[in-house]
Amino acid sequence: MRPFHVVVPLSALFLFCTVLPCIGQESTSSAGTFPGFSVSGTQDERAIEKRFDAQLDSKDLAEWLKRLSARPHHIGSAYGKSNAEFLAGLFRSWGYATEIEEFDVLFPTPKKRLLEMTGPEHYTAKLSEPPLNEDSTSGQTEEQLPTYNAYSIDGDVTGELVYVNYGIPSDYEQLEQRGIDVRGKIVIARYGGSWRGIKPKVAAEHGAVGCIIYSDPKDDGYAEGDVYPKGAYRNEWGVQRGSVGDMPLYSGDPSTPFVGAVKGAKHLSVKDSKTITKIPVLPISYGDALPMLRALNGPVVPDEWKGSLPITYHIGPGPANIHLNLEFNWNLTPAYDVVARLQGAERPDQWIIRGNHHDGWVNGAGDPLAGQVAMLAEAKAVSKLAASGWKPKRTMIYCAWDGEEPGLLGSTEWVETHADELLKHGAVYINTDGNGRGFLGMSGSHTLEQFVNTVSQDVTDPETHVSVAKRARAQRVVNSSGDAKKEALDRPDMRIGALGSGSDYTPFLQHLGIAALSVGYGGEDGGGSYHSIYDSYTHYTRFGDPGFQYGVALAQTAGRMTLRLANADVLPFEFSDFTETVGKYVKEVVKLADDMRESTEDQNRMIRDNAFTLAADPTQTYVVPRPKDPVPFLNFSSLQNALSTLQDRTKEYQQAARGVDYKNFSRAEQQELDNSYMHVEQLLTEKDGLPRRPWFVHQIYAPGAYTGYGVKTLPAVREAIELRNWKEADEQIVTVSKVLLRYADGIGKITNLLKKQTKADAGQ
Amino acid sequence: MRPFHVVVPLSALFLFCTVLPCIGQESTSSAGTFPGFSVSGTQDERAIEKRFDAQLDSKDLAEWLKRLSARPHHIGSAYGKSNAEFLAGLFRSWGYATEIEEFDVLFPTPKKRLLEMTGPEHYTAKLSEPPLNEDSTSGQTEEQLPTYNAYSIDGDVTGELVYVNYGIPSDYEQLEQRGIDVRGKIVIARYGGSWRGIKPKVAAEHGAVGCIIYSDPKDDGYAEGDVYPKGAYRNEWGVQRGSVGDMPLYSGDPSTPFVGAVKGAKHLSVKDSKTITKIPVLPISYGDALPMLRALNGPVVPDEWKGSLPITYHIGPGPANIHLNLEFNWNLTPAYDVVARLQGAERPDQWIIRGNHHDGWVNGAGDPLAGQVAMLAEAKAVSKLAASGWKPKRTMIYCAWDGEEPGLLGSTEWVETHADELLKHGAVYINTDGNGRGFLGMSGSHTLEQFVNTVSQDVTDPETHVSVAKRARAQRVVNSSGDAKKEALDRPDMRIGALGSGSDYTPFLQHLGIAALSVGYGGEDGGGSYHSIYDSYTHYTRFGDPGFQYGVALAQTAGRMTLRLANADVLPFEFSDFTETVGKYVKEVVKLADDMRESTEDQNRMIRDNAFTLAADPTQTYVVPRPKDPVPFLNFSSLQNALSTLQDRTKEYQQAARGVDYKNFSRAEQQELDNSYMHVEQLLTEKDGLPRRPWFVHQIYAPGAYTGYGVKTLPAVREAIELRNWKEADEQIVTVSKVLLRYADGIGKITNLLKKQTKADAGQ
Repeated sequence: MRPFHVVVPLSALFLFCTVLPCIGQESTSSAGTFPGFSVSGTQDERAIEKRFDAQLDSKDLAEWLKRLSARPHHIGSAYGKSNAEFLAGLFRSWGYATEIEEFDVLFPTPKKRLLEMTGPEHYTAKLSEPPLNEDSTSGQTEEQLPTYNAYSIDGDVTGELVYVNYGIPSDYEQLEQRGIDVRGKIVIARYGGSWRGIKPKVAAEHGAVGCIIYSDPKDDGYAEGDVYPKGAYRNEWGVQRGSVGDMPLYSGDPSTPFVGAVKGAKHLSVKDSKTITKIPVLPISYGDALPMLRALNGPVVPDEWKGSLPITYHIGPGPANIHLNLEFNWNLTPAYDVVARLQGAERPDQWIIRGNHHDGWVNGAGDPLAGQVAMLAEAKAVSKLAASGWKPKRTMIYCAWDGEEPGLLGSTEWVETHADELLKHGAVYINTDGNGRGFLGMSGSHTLEQFVNTVSQDVTDPETHVSVAKRARAQRVVNSSGDAKKEALDRPDMRIGALGSGSDYTPFLQHLGIAALSVGYGGEDGGGSYHSIYDSYTHYTRFGDPGFQYGVALAQTAGRMTLRLANADVLPFEFSDFTETVGKYVKEVVKLADDMRESTEDQNRMIRDNAFTLAADPTQTYVVPRPKDPVPFLNFSSLQNALSTLQDRTKEYQQAARGVDYKNFSRAEQQELDNSYMHVEQLLTEKDGLPRRPWFVHQIYAPGAYTGYGVKTLPAVREAIELRNWKEADEQIVTVSKVLLRYADGIGKITNLLKKQTKADAGQ
Repeated sequence: MRPFHVVVPLSALFLFCTVLPCIGQESTSSAGTFPGFSVSGTQDERAIEKRFDAQLDSKDLAEWLKRLSARPHHIGSAYGKSNAEFLAGLFRSWGYATEIEEFDVLFPTPKKRLLEMTGPEHYTAKLSEPPLNEDSTSGQTEEQLPTYNAYSIDGDVTGELVYVNYGIPSDYEQLEQRGIDVRGKIVIARYGGSWRGIKPKVAAEHGAVGCIIYSDPKDDGYAEGDVYPKGAYRNEWGVQRGSVGDMPLYSGDPSTPFVGAVKGAKHLSVKDSKTITKIPVLPISYGDALPMLRALNGPVVPDEWKGSLPITYHIGPGPANIHLNLEFNWNLTPAYDVVARLQGAERPDQWIIRGNHHDGWVNGAGDPLAGQVAMLAEAKAVSKLAASGWKPKRTMIYCAWDGEEPGLLGSTEWVETHADELLKHGAVYINTDGNGRGFLGMSGSHTLEQFVNTVSQDVTDPETHVSVAKRARAQRVVNSSGDAKKEALDRPDMRIGALGSGSDYTPFLQHLGIAALSVGYGGEDGGGSYHSIYDSYTHYTRFGDPGFQYGVALAQTAGRMTLRLANADVLPFEFSDFTETVGKYVKEVVKLADDMRESTEDQNRMIRDNAFTLAADPTQTYVVPRPKDPVPFLNFSSLQNALSTLQDRTKEYQQAARGVDYKNFSRAEQQELDNSYMHVEQLLTEKDGLPRRPWFVHQIYAPGAYTGYGVKTLPAVREAIELRNWKEADEQIVTVSKVLLRYADGIGKITNLLKKQTKADAGQ
């Protein structure tokens, strides 16, 4: 369910060259030894990767994509099951120990969908995407899921319509200033600005009785480019399906939080399943939205709320009156996860897990199959290596997840089912999802930032023939501005993004504390087929990645990550980037409080001085904001002290690690080091989880409670400040400080292990 | 021709309270003595202003507006002449010595207008605005000027169409990057981003053969609000008429630069009139633009270029093929300036000039009559004072200009004709133009910043009943951000804007160096009737200023300015704001060079490193920008030293002026001071004018050569840097430095006059 543009976060990426800026130097290959490898191990690994690359064939990817996307294959569909079996068959044929693990998950499908405007004119929404002659699979109407939002509650509601922009909390502040209350109303929000599940959640919190979500052509339609089938973009009747579960609370089956939905597991009732929406929600096209938005009166929207429909956008409420009637089949549905293992020769109990989901909303060519076929190519190539006698040191596990689209069902249930084993054996999880032509984007645990940067220097961009690292960096340098441009110009490596949510890494990283990575290409694969019937083989091979060159590049990239992690003498974790990044986060939360203090003071002063009233047009309703409680000075000292300790331990670690050659370590010593490395990310978790969301235990990365896709780093502290809960902020500062100290301790232990060996070296 | 929204420049307005921030303190009246007045003089002046206010009657304004806007009254029209006579009649009836001064000016009107798309489909542009039943004067088709741009050259051209966004220089850089050349093409630009005359000028410089300008609904149409007649905004067929002369070169009759176009004056041929465009230009509605824009192919436009039409905006060129055929009657037309004098009792040779134009593009209710009727109300009230025996110290001159719309014709020809007298006698020029409901906006010579701030504290806002100063400040505080908000919060007074061009102050201030002010209300008078047949009494009284309360407020504001300037013991010029402002400008030009140096280095580095090519999509044409010459370190020392001297002289002046009570000055001493004050702005001019535009002599304020409306401060230096002409920049720094030193000297002389009196005081 990755959002439809590969967002290469400007606050997030870059390439590595330790000392001097390497812009200008052409390097299509990382120099020196690979992180985690000895000098000779690096040479061996290079040779293996050369053979690996030779096995990758874009024709395979094309063929698999065609087969897998030939019919709709959402969770619970006949073709979805067939795809799982096809995938399992491939893995088996390549020699992997392969199982299909089945879960019984709650997956609602529509029984009734009615949306009509009952006044001032009558309009019944079409709620369907027309088949196109230019796209053969778009006519498979029988097997297509209708346009809907999964985990919308049933409901038959009527009310005046209110346009709420993206429907995120700040939009409701604008409504409040205009004296507009959504209680008892139906809101219409445009897609964008947050995880879609935030929109009905916030609407319900404000008393709305129903929620419509539409794709505005400004964000997803003709304003972006020519529409399908002339161009790649969403046409008048295209609809974005998608889950609206409250994923920031927990992912997976809403009725089985914390436990795997294995056959016979206990399921909560729909009523008690907390991630299901409180009000009915339906996604629609801009063709269906236009008559309703045009029928609104009331204030003209603020500039930032304007879309690209040829109308004056008004907020309402009304006079448009809406009737929304939704009913769903609340059935348990089988989810089929395909899990394929290649046993590690030396450290079979250390698992390198590589995953991509296989279910789509409809034909799902771009999302998720473009990533799935890259993973298949990797697995096939690895199997060829294995067939020739090579074996990975560690166990490699390929996972093709089912039910990601409704809410990371397949991955979450698997992780919850195997939590104990995973906590013991899970070293790293590497995720991909959709993929397309363009630039490398990487996010994940910052302990792996140096590692993935090295990998990105060894993959050649198919269009420009420089390293994908160099190309991604060029893109940042050119397209960023201000501080981000400065950093892009001055920093030779690539800052990786932090993970929020929106794909299958979430249960691994944020529920268990297993280091995770997410990787993909995009930015030149413009399009608006996301979660529609037009996400087809035809669309993908016209606009996504016509020659599957970026599919091969992804296989080379994620394949190298998986292989190097599986083969390294010692797991290539590293702490300086992590510590630098946490230092940045600490600065950010301190600044957040300072900025809020200043803006609160300014705002309260403006309220006292009557400035808001004086600046308002007296012919329009204007409600002056209420004064806010002043922002106290929070006690950040424990956090700053913990950071300081973390920085000290990191420096000691760097010193101890300098010049280490793992060939001098015995296998037992390597394994001892590995055990420490692979569990160190878990030290960043806190068993009670985040305030109000115990399922999320990671204290550095979490999806924002009110952003969803968007990450909140140091989430417990950051969100307490954002919510102006000063008591909680002070408490969470202490909690996070303890976590950082525990982590610093963990680094210290690794340093001691390294020193022991360094001494042994000296003694030799 | 004031632009259609009263722009309250955020970098520009605020209220005065010398020491402590007065936010929170309610003051609807300035405390203490008025600038330029003795204590007792202030009391007298307050009494006079109270009587003045009592004479202002919104019914008068409504009646005059109705009469003057009853029929189209552009320059050369029968009703325009009738209006001039009506105005002269009013002034005469009030006892003013009134003349109609006539000039013979070049004013082209359309003979032929044809715009058609000849392929891929055929479309003939309507080029007309439909009469509306809801607006009675909109049907006066016979007398309306057709939709056109004055001073477009004749031309019959055909070519492929290219969309160029606003058509300003930076837009052509974007075209160049995409490998698009407009040579031999017809460009279509949207209104906005600059004075409209810049668009054909830049297009011609790039080799285009024709230019279409249209109103995009994003900037001026349904995206802003409901369209006329439902709401105030520009409808599908509304067209913005307007001049496209190269006003930044000189204003006034294109065929008589530097000299007054009195009867029998020598006129240049059209060919030799440098401000006439090089290529034919025509303005159109978004209804006419839509089929042509829709027919474009080629690259999709950059995000910032997107308008609000329901299409994918492409750049072209073509396949839309355009035929544009324009012919004009190049006739000399009489312009009727109404000039009404009230002789000063004590200093008749010091002139306070108050002006507003009377010609409209069509019925011109909002632009210019809303300002004209406020001026009439002032003149009537002053006449009542005069009838009761009061006389101003200085001569007051009310001017109702003709032919402002095509290019400040009436004012410029008058100023050029009377230049010698004006240089001797002109003390201050106070301009108004359109007016509407909302917030006070003030711009002008910064020597008058303190003065106008004091005035703005004494006028009560009709909607909120606080001072207009307080309300304007509240608006800035609330609607600005960053540094501007900080300044708005911390600075108790109102920073006034610098004057660019776009109304009749230009010849006074920038051609002669007479201190000038421009003042008006707006911001709540939303609308899109600007320069269309819908700028009518009906529209104005629905959306502009329904009860004429802001017309009265403007009369109170500009009236107080005129009266105080006419009555002050000594002209209320002051130097600290000016010097602070010039200091800011000096910092800006130094920073401009520094920023350009840094961005040039960054950009050249990116070019060297191939970053642009790597970041580009290889399936699209992309032309890497050429490296730019590095920005040298300019020698700003003379400017900085001159500023330092100016600051010293200003401090000495402040010291000498502190506690001065003008009652201790003899009349002769006051007059001597006045003579210095009233000529000090002229010290800011340089007789050779600006590089390539000798008509513009003011060295602090000028319209930008490539912005037009938008001011360039320290223009000679700033524009040389922007044009990367380092030699010229270094030369102009020296020139401007000399000007500032000469000005500092002028302040020194005034200080000596004040000291002389202070000594005399001490001796008493």
